[in-house]
Amino acid sequence: MSGQTVGDLPGVVVTGVSGRMGQMLVREILASDRLRLVAGVERTGHGWVGRDLGAAMGGADLGVPVMDDALEAFAKAQAVIDFTTPEATVGFAELAAQARAVHVIGTTGLSEADLAKIKAAARHAVVVRAGNMSLGVNLLTLLTKKVAAALDEDWDIEIVEAHHNQKVDAPSGTALMLGEAAAEGRGVALADVSDRGRDGMTGARKRGDIGFAALRGGDIVGEHDVMFATAGERLILRHVASDRSLFARGALRAALWGQDKAPGEYDMLDVLGLN
Amino acid sequence: MSGQTVGDLPGVVVTGVSGRMGQMLVREILASDRLRLVAGVERTGHGWVGRDLGAAMGGADLGVPVMDDALEAFAKAQAVIDFTTPEATVGFAELAAQARAVHVIGTTGLSEADLAKIKAAARHAVVVRAGNMSLGVNLLTLLTKKVAAALDEDWDIEIVEAHHNQKVDAPSGTALMLGEAAAEGRGVALADVSDRGRDGMTGARKRGDIGFAALRGGDIVGEHDVMFATAGERLILRHVASDRSLFARGALRAALWGQDKAPGEYDMLDVLGLN
Amino acid sequence: MSGQTVGDLPGVVVTGVSGRMGQMLVREILASDRLRLVAGVERTGHGWVGRDLGAAMGGADLGVPVMDDALEAFAKAQAVIDFTTPEATVGFAELAAQARAVHVIGTTGLSEADLAKIKAAARHAVVVRAGNMSLGVNLLTLLTKKVAAALDEDWDIEIVEAHHNQKVDAPSGTALMLGEAAAEGRGVALADVSDRGRDGMTGARKRGDIGFAALRGGDIVGEHDVMFATAGERLILRHVASDRSLFARGALRAALWGQDKAPGEYDMLDVLGLN
Amino acid sequence: MSGQTVGDLPGVVVTGVSGRMGQMLVREILASDRLRLVAGVERTGHGWVGRDLGAAMGGADLGVPVMDDALEAFAKAQAVIDFTTPEATVGFAELAAQARAVHVIGTTGLSEADLAKIKAAARHAVVVRAGNMSLGVNLLTLLTKKVAAALDEDWDIEIVEAHHNQKVDAPSGTALMLGEAAAEGRGVALADVSDRGRDGMTGARKRGDIGFAALRGGDIVGEHDVMFATAGERLILRHVASDRSLFARGALRAALWGQDKAPGEYDMLDVLGLN
Repeated sequence: MSGQTVGDLPGVVVTGVSGRMGQMLVREILASDRLRLVAGVERTGHGWVGRDLGAAMGGADLGVPVMDDALEAFAKAQAVIDFTTPEATVGFAELAAQARAVHVIGTTGLSEADLAKIKAAARHAVVVRAGNMSLGVNLLTLLTKKVAAALDEDWDIEIVEAHHNQKVDAPSGTALMLGEAAAEGRGVALADVSDRGRDGMTGARKRGDIGFAALRGGDIVGEHDVMFATAGERLILRHVASDRSLFARGALRAALWGQDKAPGEYDMLDVLGLN
Repeated sequence: MSGQTVGDLPGVVVTGVSGRMGQMLVREILASDRLRLVAGVERTGHGWVGRDLGAAMGGADLGVPVMDDALEAFAKAQAVIDFTTPEATVGFAELAAQARAVHVIGTTGLSEADLAKIKAAARHAVVVRAGNMSLGVNLLTLLTKKVAAALDEDWDIEIVEAHHNQKVDAPSGTALMLGEAAAEGRGVALADVSDRGRDGMTGARKRGDIGFAALRGGDIVGEHDVMFATAGERLILRHVASDRSLFARGALRAALWGQDKAPGEYDMLDVLGLN
Repeated sequence: MSGQTVGDLPGVVVTGVSGRMGQMLVREILASDRLRLVAGVERTGHGWVGRDLGAAMGGADLGVPVMDDALEAFAKAQAVIDFTTPEATVGFAELAAQARAVHVIGTTGLSEADLAKIKAAARHAVVVRAGNMSLGVNLLTLLTKKVAAALDEDWDIEIVEAHHNQKVDAPSGTALMLGEAAAEGRGVALADVSDRGRDGMTGARKRGDIGFAALRGGDIVGEHDVMFATAGERLILRHVASDRSLFARGALRAALWGQDKAPGEYDMLDVLGLN
Repeated sequence: MSGQTVGDLPGVVVTGVSGRMGQMLVREILASDRLRLVAGVERTGHGWVGRDLGAAMGGADLGVPVMDDALEAFAKAQAVIDFTTPEATVGFAELAAQARAVHVIGTTGLSEADLAKIKAAARHAVVVRAGNMSLGVNLLTLLTKKVAAALDEDWDIEIVEAHHNQKVDAPSGTALMLGEAAAEGRGVALADVSDRGRDGMTGARKRGDIGFAALRGGDIVGEHDVMFATAGERLILRHVASDRSLFARGALRAALWGQDKAPGEYDMLDVLGLN
């Protein structure tokens, strides 16, 4: 691997380093004793480019540069952690593959065309991609699918989520991902059984439906319940996120995990050893 | 009081005695050591009229008649427990007042005109009326109003309820009652701040709104959460009903409580001593 | 199979039929359209023996006898459902095997010697045995083991249960079963990591411990939470039992499931198709 | 008032300003548009004394001094916020009274003698004192007392709390405060009815007991449930703290509230307008 001395910790580059998620990733890598921060990347023209990353973040110098030449940065690293935009990520995927660095992708909103390009890059390097990097949520998704497969339609499935009062969409993307997992477990299409926005004279619940409800209030980071309810009993699988930094920590874990893997595209269930 | 010997337990008549709620009331009164069942009432022509109530319910004789002459029945009693229809209840209110029996009304869907007639009857006798006879739910309603009055709009209010999969309307009547209590505590009209059926691109939560969500599954008897959420903390007031018989027990408590009260219209908060 | 005509529903015998669980099993079988009740069994000398089961239960005749000759009863059946005592169950296991009837065992407190005898019987017939016949609890046990295996000791495991105020032991047997599953998932012995009855100056939580807490109140049927908590997130697996009859329904499902299986000993995870 | 120009925001001094809570208070005051930070106080000899507070905290200058002469600092302020030690707080109470500044006390572990001295100081100035400055927890305490007073011993009271895995005592101080409130509502002494550390063959729950359970895991900030459970229903009052800064924000609210009050000793329920 490029630039690694025996005994070194794997080196990491954070893209979009000036953003909220970028800075959180920096703090988590600095606090880690298993990864080493080698550079931040920002777009050409950004005020941070050329400065020391620590100083740019308003603190002491870290001896870590902010660079706009991503390939040069990636060449010094064993992993790239990337929560940016679809366009940027597609470009980074190719460069990370050239540098043989593990590419951890938390970027959302990728199109089919974007995904095809990432797939191509994954022929040469390890790519780990997930819409939610929280270990718990990924495990919850897996459990939801398995439980939905194990239980028949005598068990009504309801998915409830709670988020802060600034969230603009409902249900949350994670709730929909859980709904997809439940539908897949049952062998149905979510679109055919989804019951959202229940209000008014709804009639009795339709057998086989998957219901969604959304709560909004305060600064709730994110809570998801998947309820399976039948006569006399209920099974509830619940995830509570209390700190946004956990999404950063999931990315770090993926970066470490990918160090000794064969090229290919992976998700957090692979990282967890659950696939 | 009509028909009472010193030392007797107060006598109770159950109207609509053949219905699901009527039979549950019968079982609870029989199990009580503080009330005595004197008659069931059914409409003229009903197959149970003239039979022994115990036999009609498929068990042993109880020595308790099923009658269609409500006034004759009420004259033997100190209380009437009535979960029937608005039309029937309005008539029973007048007859119970004539008999000076406490009239416990669990009937729902009463119109303004119905309520006026009940108010008239309450000039001569004790009437206890509540949409939900559970002590816990009534207490929850009171707490909701007080907390809403104590906290400002930095606290977002959300009301979530869960019921069995046969329920045809959402939110539940009790959830709406809780919403009314919250709005009253805040000095606003619920209609102006109600946010129901949240789904899709909703935009950020509107300050001051009261949100509702409804879950449906299995045979859940009834669960209600009132959440007050602000930055860094949440207060949640929750009621869980696990047995429909508690609505019957609330009615029995009201019947007992009313025995020594002055004529007038009361609710379960009076019964609880919380008004 | 003994006594079965083509097209017949599988016939079931309930042992200990006069007990609370026995009568609940009878009611569930009568309500089922997939099983047929052929007899109840009680010990010789019991007042119900020789009577019609329906009459003995205080209702109408069912045409189903209460017998004290278990082998004679079992010979008419395809399944025996047995929530009795260890001594009785060991005897029934041998007789059910002779009759080639599926033996569904919900009896608890079986010794190693008892288990050995049941194992011997299972060489000739299908035995399904489980300490908790609720499908949901069995699924929860499985999930607990899998999640404990997937997550490392950065995730603290806590098991909380709530039961009615008459329960005399804490934690519940089911909570301990869940603790065993968690410990097994982690590859440790529960006895080495169990933390019960936390109170006073406990010091910081010991890494790797599995904590237990017990709530008691009202008539709660049984609720179990398995919490996995780490920095920034929590995963909670929860089961809520709201009706004791679900334990009976689990037994019926096991009886049906066993009809076409090879002799051997099974548990509810086999019945659920999860082993 | 000393040092205030018409139109000024009330000025605040933070004692023990170098500590974790002190620094959190500083950040919250700086973020507030209703209070103005005028000084930090540290003990004589502390390295921060004489420096600019912003610089001492590792950031930019704030133009706010760190002083060791508390009286001189208090003379410039309308409020003092004080989460220190009992000895320090007793001294500050006298000095704040001399300066006629509102003294907000979050210090815990005060002895009867300490409380007497604070009471003496409160003859001349406003003192607001509370063991937990969270608005939600104070409201929960009040609700707990009222509900315990409204419901009889048919309702079992259980208090459950969850905290992070570094907490060394159980139950939490807040849980005990809630238990005191419940006992007071019932007119009993908590010591007589407290049931802690339930484990093993406990026997049935004793009527009238107040049970406690403690969960420990991850980095849970603090969650408290007060459950009232009876046959068929439960009422649960729950508080969830998700951010330690809320304790600081409660103190700021108290400082503001006290500005126009008569000398005397107050608590957070006064601040909330609930006493």
